[in-house]
Amino acid sequence: MSNATDAPATLNDVFQRDCPGRVVIEHITGRWGMLILVALCERPMRFYMLRDRIGGISEKMLSQNLKTLVRDGLVEREVEPSTPPKVTYRLSPLGRELACAVRTLVAFIGERVPAIMAAQRRYDRGDGLPDGD
Amino acid sequence: MSNATDAPATLNDVFQRDCPGRVVIEHITGRWGMLILVALCERPMRFYMLRDRIGGISEKMLSQNLKTLVRDGLVEREVEPSTPPKVTYRLSPLGRELACAVRTLVAFIGERVPAIMAAQRRYDRGDGLPDGD
Repeated sequence: MSNATDAPATLNDVFQRDCPGRVVIEHITGRWGMLILVALCERPMRFYMLRDRIGGISEKMLSQNLKTLVRDGLVEREVEPSTPPKVTYRLSPLGRELACAVRTLVAFIGERVPAIMAAQRRYDRGDGLPDGD
Repeated sequence: MSNATDAPATLNDVFQRDCPGRVVIEHITGRWGMLILVALCERPMRFYMLRDRIGGISEKMLSQNLKTLVRDGLVEREVEPSTPPKVTYRLSPLGRELACAVRTLVAFIGERVPAIMAAQRRYDRGDGLPDGD
């Protein structure tokens, strides 16, 4: 097993079912984790601000994903000792580095969305689709 | 609505619940789509080769994700007219461009896995975790 607990995950490792790096990568590239990181690139935010920024996220999903990202050391919770306590979420230095990389990929894919949607229309019209497996 | 059908998806658009680009981004960055694209970066593959390369993927998930990526115009099916027909999956030029970008991100995150796992251990020991929301 090439993936000792504290070794970086190589491209080869992530194909292994039990690669710990694969799970971490999914926290960062998963639907909600990705959008939370990109949103926090803009500025630190309170829980309700994130909820309003990320269309379609439930409070439960936001809460779970924030907890995961805090545990991963990518997001920090800053608690203001008021009643009730006010919590602000911000990227850690490591989180900022990863969030920037995710943001770049999202923008890169975003530019290619028209080409992908044109391909979907061609597919749905049934152009050039051989059969068999 | 800033996201007309054939406009590129901007970073702002992907926060909208009904952004078509958001769905496309999830095809590419989702758990299995991501690994299929990175695997096909190595070389074109038959179905069973992909299944064996990607630890933990079921044939159903592989089949569904391949269909999605073919519809998106990122993966091409090449059918050899034999009995039974042999199908090889390969990246399209657009797919290769995106797969390279995904591969770069996966490698980038992979390098930071030890730091993330160290953070997880600190979290699990309960170091410095304020409470409240």
